[in-house]
Amino acid sequence: MGYQAPVRDMKFLFDDVLQLDRFSNLEGFADAPKDVRDQILEEGAKFCENVLAPLNSVGDKQGCKLNPDNTVTVPDGFTEAYHALVEAGWPLLSADPAYGGQGLPHVVNMAYSEMTSSANMAFGMYPGLTHGCYSAIHEGGTDEQKDLYLPKLASGEWAGTMNLTEPHCGTDLGLLRTKAVPQADGTYKITGQKIWISGGEHSMTSNHIHLVLARIEGAPAGVKGISLFIVPKFIVHADGSLGARNTVTCVGLEEKMGIHGNATCVMQYEEATGYLIGEPNKGLSIMFVMMNEARLGVGLQGMAVGESAYQAALAFAKDRRQGRSLTGPKEPDQPADNILVHPDVRRMLMDIKAHTEGGRAFLYWTALYGDLLHKSPDEAVRQKAGDYMSLLTPVLKAYLTDKGHKNASDALQVHGGSGFTEHYQASQFLRDSKIAMIYEGTNGVQALDLVGRKLAANGGRAIQTFFAEIDAFVAEHEGDEQLAPFIAGLASARAQLQDATMWLMANGMSNFDNAGASSHDYLHVFGLTGLAYMWALMAKAAFAKAGSEPFYDTKIKTGRYFIDRILPEIASHLAKVKTGAAPVMALSAEEF
Amino acid sequence: MGYQAPVRDMKFLFDDVLQLDRFSNLEGFADAPKDVRDQILEEGAKFCENVLAPLNSVGDKQGCKLNPDNTVTVPDGFTEAYHALVEAGWPLLSADPAYGGQGLPHVVNMAYSEMTSSANMAFGMYPGLTHGCYSAIHEGGTDEQKDLYLPKLASGEWAGTMNLTEPHCGTDLGLLRTKAVPQADGTYKITGQKIWISGGEHSMTSNHIHLVLARIEGAPAGVKGISLFIVPKFIVHADGSLGARNTVTCVGLEEKMGIHGNATCVMQYEEATGYLIGEPNKGLSIMFVMMNEARLGVGLQGMAVGESAYQAALAFAKDRRQGRSLTGPKEPDQPADNILVHPDVRRMLMDIKAHTEGGRAFLYWTALYGDLLHKSPDEAVRQKAGDYMSLLTPVLKAYLTDKGHKNASDALQVHGGSGFTEHYQASQFLRDSKIAMIYEGTNGVQALDLVGRKLAANGGRAIQTFFAEIDAFVAEHEGDEQLAPFIAGLASARAQLQDATMWLMANGMSNFDNAGASSHDYLHVFGLTGLAYMWALMAKAAFAKAGSEPFYDTKIKTGRYFIDRILPEIASHLAKVKTGAAPVMALSAEEF
Repeated sequence: MGYQAPVRDMKFLFDDVLQLDRFSNLEGFADAPKDVRDQILEEGAKFCENVLAPLNSVGDKQGCKLNPDNTVTVPDGFTEAYHALVEAGWPLLSADPAYGGQGLPHVVNMAYSEMTSSANMAFGMYPGLTHGCYSAIHEGGTDEQKDLYLPKLASGEWAGTMNLTEPHCGTDLGLLRTKAVPQADGTYKITGQKIWISGGEHSMTSNHIHLVLARIEGAPAGVKGISLFIVPKFIVHADGSLGARNTVTCVGLEEKMGIHGNATCVMQYEEATGYLIGEPNKGLSIMFVMMNEARLGVGLQGMAVGESAYQAALAFAKDRRQGRSLTGPKEPDQPADNILVHPDVRRMLMDIKAHTEGGRAFLYWTALYGDLLHKSPDEAVRQKAGDYMSLLTPVLKAYLTDKGHKNASDALQVHGGSGFTEHYQASQFLRDSKIAMIYEGTNGVQALDLVGRKLAANGGRAIQTFFAEIDAFVAEHEGDEQLAPFIAGLASARAQLQDATMWLMANGMSNFDNAGASSHDYLHVFGLTGLAYMWALMAKAAFAKAGSEPFYDTKIKTGRYFIDRILPEIASHLAKVKTGAAPVMALSAEEF
Repeated sequence: MGYQAPVRDMKFLFDDVLQLDRFSNLEGFADAPKDVRDQILEEGAKFCENVLAPLNSVGDKQGCKLNPDNTVTVPDGFTEAYHALVEAGWPLLSADPAYGGQGLPHVVNMAYSEMTSSANMAFGMYPGLTHGCYSAIHEGGTDEQKDLYLPKLASGEWAGTMNLTEPHCGTDLGLLRTKAVPQADGTYKITGQKIWISGGEHSMTSNHIHLVLARIEGAPAGVKGISLFIVPKFIVHADGSLGARNTVTCVGLEEKMGIHGNATCVMQYEEATGYLIGEPNKGLSIMFVMMNEARLGVGLQGMAVGESAYQAALAFAKDRRQGRSLTGPKEPDQPADNILVHPDVRRMLMDIKAHTEGGRAFLYWTALYGDLLHKSPDEAVRQKAGDYMSLLTPVLKAYLTDKGHKNASDALQVHGGSGFTEHYQASQFLRDSKIAMIYEGTNGVQALDLVGRKLAANGGRAIQTFFAEIDAFVAEHEGDEQLAPFIAGLASARAQLQDATMWLMANGMSNFDNAGASSHDYLHVFGLTGLAYMWALMAKAAFAKAGSEPFYDTKIKTGRYFIDRILPEIASHLAKVKTGAAPVMALSAEEF
């Protein structure tokens, strides 16, 4: 049995925890009442389970091929699946109705995206990056550019890519060298090499729209001289028809540890025709729209691969019989019990389950704020939503992908030696999940973004709002006996997060290395606190319906596992935060 | 620059920490004074750096091939390297002089083994398994068997393998089905299939000696009916000459996530001629000699791969320039600083360095007890040595391989996106390191062995001895200001290990699932305490020579990093130990 989308859990979040029907007065939400959402979840599940999941292993084993004519061949079945995806209209779910989209809430789309990433992460990146490209043009393009490019990007008929990295610069975009030379007709000639371009070339779509960061001749050095350009593979005429092949070529494919089904391209631009988006030298701010969306999407990948890895490990554990329960045979008529009886196997499965369900809640809860940011009529709500999106994006990206990789490793471990063979999918999940800790800004960069930028923005308003929300929740449920362990865990986590935050405020400014040295562990304190809050919210919703369905009791037990067995990790992260830079930076460069 | 053996660190352990010259009265040690040890380290380093390391990536990329005639082709260069290894006599280092060995201490051999595993883990497994086979026959064979097989196993002229696993049974050997039918001439006909046989077939050696677990017809079911057999690929005549090809065939190779350079074989035995070792139905006890040796060797692999991964990450970090130090440019004349200036990169490098150097000390320190167990004239010393070997083997195996995989993942992370491409070795280290958490008994099995068997053996004598040794060390150095942070850290760790042990004694017997649910975290409390002790020993030795060489100051700073930044993890493991089974086992099988 392959991947089964966790539709029940998604419905629980939509209906019982987030209670999306509360927002039916808002644009988009009105079109997504429960019956519509349920249908989307169920149809999405069918598509991902039946079409995408069976191709996951195919993609891993075949990978992509660069042909002598610089075209790229994707794995068997990918093209048909991609066409089916476009035909079914899945990419349009949350796109702007002005460009053919359905305009549904992002939070609903997030559940569909999760299924895609669980079923086939490498495949899911093709429409994923296209959506990012769509968002950047939607944010920064002229009306003319939007009309020209957005409808076919929204539908997935064309592919979109993002081109940032060059061989000598990844994180440090200020170093980039790709140049743009202005032409008399207002276009630019783009020349340079970009690497690690996901989906940079393939024939699943009739065109590619590359978003390319480049430096206009004479622009300032560093990040202040970077502009953003649209470089179509085939020039798009004003009437939408396709013209000449542009001088952008895939000249290489990376050989990678995972996500083999996605073509990671070296793209060569040789005086390729490009169109400026937004103001000259202001390209990074538009690219960051795409990046932030992509970062949430990568956090989602971390969680989603954990889900598939969990399902595979659970299926193996139920099937594999080795040894006996420590408390006596559970199935004496069988030659051995299944390994689900062993507490250490349970520990690994419960770790993954509690992280994944908590992470899913945290992502959907945040995605809802993404909708409110754009759609709420209440300015205070929009401000809070914007603050949360900004503050939580690095936490979700880094915490959930760190844990996603750990979860995939534990899931492989449940398989024992079988997991190390490529006969099972466990290895692919482990290999695929690692990239999520790296791309769209390494997790170290996320942690620095959190402590260096996001915390202090607007005088710390975002985290103060987050603390106040938790405090109100704790106060509201203080006498609730059922919820007591969740409330106690949450209150303790919140206190430790505050402690860590105070330490950073007191020590991070006087020596920035203190902030840098503590950033990783601070982010983990934050992630654990966020999940503690999510589990408290979920426990509350589950207790309200406990007994009506076994699902709710299981949910509560899983939450207790998180509080009892995972949340204690917060203390050691806090201790590490407080050591500051001294032990970390003690060695001189020469001593290494 | 490829792998550079950490010869300086090895000399530090031999000379300053373990002070091996103290034991020059003992057999073997007398032949390994400092100048001999130094020469072994330096020559071993040359061999591993120049011959084995360059083949590591070759092995990963080419893998092994099963040919239509059931022979196996190893990667290019492996055969020549193997012959060079045998010619240089490396496998003989610690082998019994009665069979051609040099009889040097195991602790000296361990350093050589480490270099092998760092340079080329997949290659190192070929002589590694052969040595395990040698040890089992040395332990359980008749004089005739020893004379016939040991000299050529000791030299590596023949290969040795261990055959335990069958498709339906890995951990649970009681289920095994391979059968042995007694023949009139005292031999047995062995029939069955064994899987995951490392180095089961290749042409680097003129013969293979397979050690095979099988059930003699009519033997009891379960583990009480398992016998051990020698099954040579080519029958060995009494005069040592090779006879007929035996009916044992490699019928498949596993496709694996890592260690591609090692042939992982499916071995088919079809009435193959086998020779019983030891008593009928007592095969497991001899196999465990091999297993325990192998477990230490696997712990060594975890540490050793961490070392290579560290070296690769450090070289990358020194070379890669991205961004500026948070405290201002360190190399203003360059376009960017190297990434070694970033505290979060330092954090990952220091984590690996502190774990690896601590782990190396713990392994060598334990290996010395392995020598004392056999060579000390003092019965009390031998008893202590046996207790420690027994108690610490599962700790070393599981703790160091858990950390080895984590270290390899962190080392890849230092590389950023480059690490995810197969152009660098980071991916191989991550992929290779995972198997060490699994084979020779998964780390979950190690943890259960520790809490279920090793702790309680002889009324808990081993761990009481360990506590007493730490207490004496703490008492001896109580007033030492330089050592104060190390002593404080060690004392705190020891107290927490005792706390965890008491909890287990109080709760593990009444409900074995409590022991099982706590075993992983208990083992980590133990591992952290062991490393805290090692760092205290190393700090003491380094302070004694501080100032004489920068090495010693670096060592002390690295130790402080361990105490300040890694040891705090112990508290969260202790908290998890104390939750017991309740949250872990809360879900019924149906709720999963």
